Amino acid sequence: MDFRPVMLVVGILLSVLALGMVIPAAVDAFAGNRDWQVFGISAGVTLFVGVAMALTFRTAGARMSVRQAFVMTTISWVALVFFAALPFTFGELELSFTDAVFESMSGLTTTGSTVITGLDYAPPGLLLWRALLQWLGGIGIIVMAIAVLPMLRVGGMQLFRMESSDQSEKALPRAAQIAGAIGTIYLGLTIIWAGGYWLAGMSGLEAVVHAMTTIATGGFSTSDSSMGHFDSALIDYIATVGMVVGGLPFLLYLKAIQGDPRALLRDSQVQWFLGIVAAAVLTAAGFLWAENGYDPFQALRYGAFNIVSVITGTGYATSDYGLWGSFAVPMFFYLMFIGGCAGSTTCGIKIFRFQVLYAAARTQVRHLLQPHGVFIPYYNRRPIPEDVMISVLSFFFVFGVCFALLALGLGMLGLDYLTATSSAATALSNVGPALGPIVGPAGTFQPLPDTAKWLLCAGMLLGRLELFTVIVLFTRAFWRG
Amino acid sequence: MDFRPVMLVVGILLSVLALGMVIPAAVDAFAGNRDWQVFGISAGVTLFVGVAMALTFRTAGARMSVRQAFVMTTISWVALVFFAALPFTFGELELSFTDAVFESMSGLTTTGSTVITGLDYAPPGLLLWRALLQWLGGIGIIVMAIAVLPMLRVGGMQLFRMESSDQSEKALPRAAQIAGAIGTIYLGLTIIWAGGYWLAGMSGLEAVVHAMTTIATGGFSTSDSSMGHFDSALIDYIATVGMVVGGLPFLLYLKAIQGDPRALLRDSQVQWFLGIVAAAVLTAAGFLWAENGYDPFQALRYGAFNIVSVITGTGYATSDYGLWGSFAVPMFFYLMFIGGCAGSTTCGIKIFRFQVLYAAARTQVRHLLQPHGVFIPYYNRRPIPEDVMISVLSFFFVFGVCFALLALGLGMLGLDYLTATSSAATALSNVGPALGPIVGPAGTFQPLPDTAKWLLCAGMLLGRLELFTVIVLFTRAFWRG
Repeated sequence: MDFRPVMLVVGILLSVLALGMVIPAAVDAFAGNRDWQVFGISAGVTLFVGVAMALTFRTAGARMSVRQAFVMTTISWVALVFFAALPFTFGELELSFTDAVFESMSGLTTTGSTVITGLDYAPPGLLLWRALLQWLGGIGIIVMAIAVLPMLRVGGMQLFRMESSDQSEKALPRAAQIAGAIGTIYLGLTIIWAGGYWLAGMSGLEAVVHAMTTIATGGFSTSDSSMGHFDSALIDYIATVGMVVGGLPFLLYLKAIQGDPRALLRDSQVQWFLGIVAAAVLTAAGFLWAENGYDPFQALRYGAFNIVSVITGTGYATSDYGLWGSFAVPMFFYLMFIGGCAGSTTCGIKIFRFQVLYAAARTQVRHLLQPHGVFIPYYNRRPIPEDVMISVLSFFFVFGVCFALLALGLGMLGLDYLTATSSAATALSNVGPALGPIVGPAGTFQPLPDTAKWLLCAGMLLGRLELFTVIVLFTRAFWRG
Repeated sequence: MDFRPVMLVVGILLSVLALGMVIPAAVDAFAGNRDWQVFGISAGVTLFVGVAMALTFRTAGARMSVRQAFVMTTISWVALVFFAALPFTFGELELSFTDAVFESMSGLTTTGSTVITGLDYAPPGLLLWRALLQWLGGIGIIVMAIAVLPMLRVGGMQLFRMESSDQSEKALPRAAQIAGAIGTIYLGLTIIWAGGYWLAGMSGLEAVVHAMTTIATGGFSTSDSSMGHFDSALIDYIATVGMVVGGLPFLLYLKAIQGDPRALLRDSQVQWFLGIVAAAVLTAAGFLWAENGYDPFQALRYGAFNIVSVITGTGYATSDYGLWGSFAVPMFFYLMFIGGCAGSTTCGIKIFRFQVLYAAARTQVRHLLQPHGVFIPYYNRRPIPEDVMISVLSFFFVFGVCFALLALGLGMLGLDYLTATSSAATALSNVGPALGPIVGPAGTFQPLPDTAKWLLCAGMLLGRLELFTVIVLFTRAFWRG
């Protein structure tokens, strides 16, 4: 296989990452924190490697085979994670190599699990860097979901191929154009939410950090107590709406701006997503009101915030929902798997897959009653091609197997049942906090053994890249040509 | 819909059940226990209802539509459960109505979860009745898997249609013949194992009870400490082999007797099953040896017995494997789902479905690499028809949803996370004990709230009847004709 086009892309992405490092360097320099040197040197090293790679392979063609695209996707994600970890190891927090990679992987995959305690006293550059990683990861995944994954046909993503993407001549410029427009929307939404948070009382840094991690549904915060630190109903509501916004398909925002605002509400994935969110919020609020004695407004505020945070895989918390009573643990556990819409910044199984799975199960039941009848499952008012259905169903199975193996591996390392299973779920679905006293919303992943952290890193990467993108690299068929 | 043929079948089955009640009545009368009256009266009532139904609807045709067959399957299972519960409520143990139905459902579905403590002092008739329920349930499910489920095409069971079963003229007599032959084999195996247990030191009653619940992979025992009561390596090994025997496809035993003994080992489902069992046993034994300080023989004995007991869904225990260390809880949890071979007495997802799911995932990966290639998944050296693949994949999804809803429901009733999730798993997979201090191998389901017990009853029924058989009855499409 010709790795040159892959290396060219990785080089370009590393150069972008290096430019990103300049921002925290500037902030730390301005704040008089000596971490600015660490960011500066990290930026220099990363830029050097990136530019060197890009220049070395500049003659590589821009065209990629499907096989090269698979390698490119996984390799570039891994390379970015390792370079992005530099400031964590060499900065003031002096994280171990494992912890630094974990934090960096958690950032770029927009997971939001953390190994750091003492965020409230951490230097501003570092807080900004964590947020920036999630923000870059968020836009990265949207662009990938629009431009790369449909081509790779992983887990039913071929449902979202644009009409033009078959004609490869026009596809690339068209995709670049769309990516640019969506990047602008993404930036615009981030600015709006930063303004909102700032008006609601956050400091400038806090507002920017939280705006970036809200729209990216990432979940990193500036405080160990996450959004609970601010204890403001207004901020909670701004964040809740922001996370929902981050969970919708960004392509539809583009359509809305281009003059078709109803496209958003007509989309069945959006309808299902909002319906599921509403049902879960009302259930949780009902329990908080009836069982835990919250007044209705409080119940709705805490219910909405924490449910939306988990469904969208953001991972903020305003309270330790593990203590909300026995209904909460299994509820939050299963909500972790759901995720948002395809083409958003969220992860997890995703709404459209549940729609396809539901349509398949429904067709199956009808088929049982009339074995010779022909029943066609629909998604978004269009028939679902058989290969998409099998893709999605296989995705669900492989997700289940990955989850079980990950939980089993964590259990074998000595983690208790709740910690092991919920950590596996939170990693694969890129949520952030898990459940229980150790890794729950009130804890961190710091106390876990290093091997467990590496397993979870693998889980986050697998989940973020829709499983098959990574798994395919480990098959003989892939390398045999 | 014409319910008469359904009622005819239910009537016949109830009459058979009533005859079954005569056995514990006789044993109790012989032992001088006054429960013989309860069994006598229960038998009378059941026989009266059964014969009355059979006579009333005797003119109904034997032919059934697919729709009627669905109703027949679910209704007859439910009716048998309720009548079989009579001796539990009115007998010496005086179980509540809920407990009696739970115990009876657990028996007939060969689950083996119990609400009874003090088995060691329970009257012999009752112990025999519990075993008999599992034994009848076991043969019932084998016959169903051969004669009914392939016709209903639930969850990919159409893979096991016999060549002749399409020609409905010959299908019924042929099926009856095969059912008779398999019933004889089932009885023969039970007698052999009863002899083995007796020679190994059990009393006559203990030997018969355990032989019945071993071959039926049911798991009811004569002691609160299950097989651990005997503390005999020989008995453990006899039971281990017996559970494996119960987990293989009985149709292949028939083929073996008819002169093709190699059919058993040539079958890919059998190969996978034995491979998975061997791998799990060696893993568990390795942990017991390395981490828990067992000597190699002990490790193998306890590992093999308890792993086989959980995989096959039998549910005996020789020790509280929940205390084997943190590796054990997730390992036993996931093993619960696996189950044995289709056409055996085991439940769970079953080996052939994992084979089909694996084949689908494998095909999926190859398809990713060559989008225009045609890849055909195979099962047992034959191509898997697309509709079977979608059936199996949908089964897996619906299984996941049922599990999540059941665990969620149990959590909402106040059960802790481990108890809720493992109870849901053990019910749907018809295993028996769950995990944790309450419902684990050392506990019983007695302390759970009544609503939880009813939910678990529903779970056991759903699992036993391959989900779709029951679910289909709750769809509008079914009743609209």
